[in-house]
Amino acid sequence: MKPVVSVIMGSTSDLPVMEKAAKFLDDMQIPFEINALSAHRTPQAVEEFAANAQQRGIKVIIAAAGMAAALPGVIAANTNVPVIGVPIKGMLDGLDAMLSIIQMPPGIPVATVGVNGAQNAAILAAQIISLSDAELAKRMADYKNSLKSKIEKANAELAEIKFAYKTN
Amino acid sequence: MKPVVSVIMGSTSDLPVMEKAAKFLDDMQIPFEINALSAHRTPQAVEEFAANAQQRGIKVIIAAAGMAAALPGVIAANTNVPVIGVPIKGMLDGLDAMLSIIQMPPGIPVATVGVNGAQNAAILAAQIISLSDAELAKRMADYKNSLKSKIEKANAELAEIKFAYKTN
Amino acid sequence: MKPVVSVIMGSTSDLPVMEKAAKFLDDMQIPFEINALSAHRTPQAVEEFAANAQQRGIKVIIAAAGMAAALPGVIAANTNVPVIGVPIKGMLDGLDAMLSIIQMPPGIPVATVGVNGAQNAAILAAQIISLSDAELAKRMADYKNSLKSKIEKANAELAEIKFAYKTN
Amino acid sequence: MKPVVSVIMGSTSDLPVMEKAAKFLDDMQIPFEINALSAHRTPQAVEEFAANAQQRGIKVIIAAAGMAAALPGVIAANTNVPVIGVPIKGMLDGLDAMLSIIQMPPGIPVATVGVNGAQNAAILAAQIISLSDAELAKRMADYKNSLKSKIEKANAELAEIKFAYKTN
Amino acid sequence: MKPVVSVIMGSTSDLPVMEKAAKFLDDMQIPFEINALSAHRTPQAVEEFAANAQQRGIKVIIAAAGMAAALPGVIAANTNVPVIGVPIKGMLDGLDAMLSIIQMPPGIPVATVGVNGAQNAAILAAQIISLSDAELAKRMADYKNSLKSKIEKANAELAEIKFAYKTN
Amino acid sequence: MKPVVSVIMGSTSDLPVMEKAAKFLDDMQIPFEINALSAHRTPQAVEEFAANAQQRGIKVIIAAAGMAAALPGVIAANTNVPVIGVPIKGMLDGLDAMLSIIQMPPGIPVATVGVNGAQNAAILAAQIISLSDAELAKRMADYKNSLKSKIEKANAELAEIKFAYKTN
Amino acid sequence: MKPVVSVIMGSTSDLPVMEKAAKFLDDMQIPFEINALSAHRTPQAVEEFAANAQQRGIKVIIAAAGMAAALPGVIAANTNVPVIGVPIKGMLDGLDAMLSIIQMPPGIPVATVGVNGAQNAAILAAQIISLSDAELAKRMADYKNSLKSKIEKANAELAEIKFAYKTN
Amino acid sequence: MKPVVSVIMGSTSDLPVMEKAAKFLDDMQIPFEINALSAHRTPQAVEEFAANAQQRGIKVIIAAAGMAAALPGVIAANTNVPVIGVPIKGMLDGLDAMLSIIQMPPGIPVATVGVNGAQNAAILAAQIISLSDAELAKRMADYKNSLKSKIEKANAELAEIKFAYKTN
Repeated sequence: MKPVVSVIMGSTSDLPVMEKAAKFLDDMQIPFEINALSAHRTPQAVEEFAANAQQRGIKVIIAAAGMAAALPGVIAANTNVPVIGVPIKGMLDGLDAMLSIIQMPPGIPVATVGVNGAQNAAILAAQIISLSDAELAKRMADYKNSLKSKIEKANAELAEIKFAYKTN
Repeated sequence: MKPVVSVIMGSTSDLPVMEKAAKFLDDMQIPFEINALSAHRTPQAVEEFAANAQQRGIKVIIAAAGMAAALPGVIAANTNVPVIGVPIKGMLDGLDAMLSIIQMPPGIPVATVGVNGAQNAAILAAQIISLSDAELAKRMADYKNSLKSKIEKANAELAEIKFAYKTN
Repeated sequence: MKPVVSVIMGSTSDLPVMEKAAKFLDDMQIPFEINALSAHRTPQAVEEFAANAQQRGIKVIIAAAGMAAALPGVIAANTNVPVIGVPIKGMLDGLDAMLSIIQMPPGIPVATVGVNGAQNAAILAAQIISLSDAELAKRMADYKNSLKSKIEKANAELAEIKFAYKTN
Repeated sequence: MKPVVSVIMGSTSDLPVMEKAAKFLDDMQIPFEINALSAHRTPQAVEEFAANAQQRGIKVIIAAAGMAAALPGVIAANTNVPVIGVPIKGMLDGLDAMLSIIQMPPGIPVATVGVNGAQNAAILAAQIISLSDAELAKRMADYKNSLKSKIEKANAELAEIKFAYKTN
Repeated sequence: MKPVVSVIMGSTSDLPVMEKAAKFLDDMQIPFEINALSAHRTPQAVEEFAANAQQRGIKVIIAAAGMAAALPGVIAANTNVPVIGVPIKGMLDGLDAMLSIIQMPPGIPVATVGVNGAQNAAILAAQIISLSDAELAKRMADYKNSLKSKIEKANAELAEIKFAYKTN
Repeated sequence: MKPVVSVIMGSTSDLPVMEKAAKFLDDMQIPFEINALSAHRTPQAVEEFAANAQQRGIKVIIAAAGMAAALPGVIAANTNVPVIGVPIKGMLDGLDAMLSIIQMPPGIPVATVGVNGAQNAAILAAQIISLSDAELAKRMADYKNSLKSKIEKANAELAEIKFAYKTN
Repeated sequence: MKPVVSVIMGSTSDLPVMEKAAKFLDDMQIPFEINALSAHRTPQAVEEFAANAQQRGIKVIIAAAGMAAALPGVIAANTNVPVIGVPIKGMLDGLDAMLSIIQMPPGIPVATVGVNGAQNAAILAAQIISLSDAELAKRMADYKNSLKSKIEKANAELAEIKFAYKTN
Repeated sequence: MKPVVSVIMGSTSDLPVMEKAAKFLDDMQIPFEINALSAHRTPQAVEEFAANAQQRGIKVIIAAAGMAAALPGVIAANTNVPVIGVPIKGMLDGLDAMLSIIQMPPGIPVATVGVNGAQNAAILAAQIISLSDAELAKRMADYKNSLKSKIEKANAELAEIKFAYKTN
């Protein structure tokens, strides 16, 4: 099947972080592609990628980068497909990447998630695609419920633990 | 027409900033609603709003808040509709609001834009909706071209100005 | 005995930090409960918990959360019981959690302690409860004196160590 | 009537900020006193004040200070009465004062509110006192409801405004 | 004469800051051009500009941008001409722009100057060009001496002023 | 009389801040000199000044600078006279100057005071000189007492003001 | 011999850092004492210590503390002896301690050194004492020269190393 | 051959970082020297070095320093040769060094690269020198192409990896 989400990272060293995005998209059965393209090392490839994404059927782009993270913004500059930016933690706790991605000028937004927020980027992409995909919307609703169950189960386990502290 | 974008702010004092979102949505002929709801002052209303948004036909929620900006995250917690967060500049240059909105836990993303980035939030919403609205997609393409024209025109004007500096 | 302090954390991964709160409350013989509830994953449970806390006899709530730490504020929004917030250290040294908890809007305070300040949160809770519990007030006075003794004893040990440096 | 809340500021220049605390306590009919004492300029007076507060019937201390804001912590060091700290905005956006107040060592908590959060400090004090004052608890419940009404009213007004933007 | 320095800004609103660069280049009789090009609004124009700069005889590029300031890095990605980046002060005191410009990945440097450091960018450009232009090198040496004279003169004036304070 | 304190600023634009140092030294009858010297514009003069300070009878140097504030450190590098550094508030709230002055390498300390802390620098200088000047020590003791009186007087005035708020 | 420098730390856990101060004072044959006193845990002892320091012959106090580091300021409040503050690195990279120590109000300076700058604090103390101790002044001059030798020697070693890189 | 680039570090402990600069210059066959000189420990040597660099044939100086990193600025103050500053990561994530280097006053620029950006400093130096060295310019063009190849190869490898995630 043709990919509808494209995951781009500025460097293959971002892969350990971005694997969580891939895994979530896979779990949700969303066809995706994953590539390394750099706004600073392969600028023409980035521009070409962005300019052609829409007609290739890409509906959401997830772009991850660290440091002076120009990649998400440069992609957003060359397409009308929604771009989700993932700041990768590096030297300055990821704050450099976060500010480089989020503080876009009026006209060219990037939907930024938290530092190393690969999974959340994938969830956001899934939410966007599910607006016109009822099957996926159902899987997303199930996923949302599973979050609740997980913490409820954790809470139940906590009930055991807490007896250790309780005086009564 | 029924609104497809819902703009929510934590306080009516955010209106001067958020007007730009309203204006852009209006320009793009996207039906929207605009309300003030506070995660801290009207929590039940927020939860009810978020829980019902999807079935009311809302496709994107834009939530703006300042300081300890819980509103976007709390809305995202109660819906699968994509939530775009707008940090409002306040005491700490808006950095408090930005971190409060963007650093969401795994499972509950908020698509965050820059400080006071109301217009960009609206553009992002329009990009998402245009994925399944060809007419809007066309208007968005026109808007993107207009950005280029504007700076090209500015550049032309600059050509005049620069002679003031040039010695030759 | 019915709990008078309720310790809530946003994630069970916060338990190693929050154990110190449990231990102090236990030492002071203050009945308490400890649960994991997430403002973002189990929002209805949080709201229900907060709304019922007062009539269940809870006098102080200690709420710990990391990153975009909405939990303490959302609880405070739904109760008049004093809420103590504990920012949990995460990606950005806990500064993201601190700002997310402390910068509350007028009307909804959260009594915030330092990053990972679980023990201090418990002491603050004990101080509040001891206002109407003379027995506890006495235990707290003893605890305060013990702090002094501990550093006096450390100082005495230091007196030994310092001879290593002194020339005379 | 004897005061039960004591409002202390490090400098009389903090009065314009701290007036909001005074006003709220007055509205809630909580007897209070207000004084200027400096941890750095009148240290003995601070220590004496703190050491005697409890036996003078003070139940909550609100201490405000800017810059290297030692006042709240030094008061907390000398009493078991709960101390609420208010960072006053100064040179570094109030971040210096916030960190100076909140990052207390284990054993000596200060319940810190947001930058210039005078009103929230007073609300927190009122919540603490209302734990053993049913009349006050009722007034606080009314106040909480009034917050909701205010934003609901603001929202109603917004409903008018928004027609200006809506195309349909 | 053909320009050897090219001054680029991300927005014409940066002109009041960048005028100082133009003025210094003019004073040093360095032929330059000044244009507005945006990495986010006119990405193709930026790429084309950068790719052709070297063969057009440009020896140094000065690129100024604010917020998520991708412009200097994207230009640097497309040329081997040295690129000097000027962070423009905006929302976050210019720290967002500074980090977006300076934290470049290995392989693609940007020579970054201080916030709003337009004049220093021009001086740096002049220093680089003067490496192979003995006439300019002489003018630069004169300029350097003038800095010393200016502060020496200021110091002399200060000598007058200080008598106001001196007791003897 | 020969000066014993030397006040140096990096730029005459720092004079409005540094006047407070001059005034305090004058009040304490400490002979001083005040000059503008720049580590970056007149480096030889700075080095010569620092190298000769001790034999000229200077006992304390107060050095003020903003931005990349190298002046205090460079002076300290060239003398054994104690150097007090004053960070001047500029673009980044003075944090750039503070870090540039305080974070000295092992071996070359600068005694740093708060942002724009000119008066405190002068007080520190006076404390150091009073170690071997009994007359000055007495004046400093009087000054310290005056601080207490000032806040006590302020507190007395506050006693009047507070009746405006008190209900009882 | 009676100590002339008093080294105080807020916690014995600061000893590994503060040992460098002790070592330097010992090397310079300056009689010193070293104690642990906490502004928050033993406030009366701190006040008593500070109030008596001068008459006990203490000429310089070095006070180290982490987090909400009130110790140096509270000591300075109670004495006219110069106080050198050492911010100890903790949770927030020591920035919390630095701001808590350096941003003192007008009237009460603390001579602050860099994060964990124990050795520099001792050097500063030695510089101050050497103003009236010619023997010590000579030892300090020797120490200053040794710094130069050390880096000159390092540079010589570097000369060997660099051949590894050089092609010619 | 006579060196045209001079690499200076404030401390030999910076060598592991600065080796990358040496390696790149070596790869590009640019004659260079590498020395340790400290603005704070060997100020005269620094000044002498800077004052003589130009006549010794040095065309670019790369100066690396950490903490209160005065070295690059002090060198720039004493020469008209372009100075590239490299902030070395230390206590405060290198932000102290970055601000100490980049925020230079008007008149004395330092071309600053990212934290620990030794290799980028060398590339920048090579770009500057290649303006008047056609052979080097060719090697630099080859290097630039190699960056692209590297990421294209990485991308190809990624193509293999990604099959692990893809469902189709």
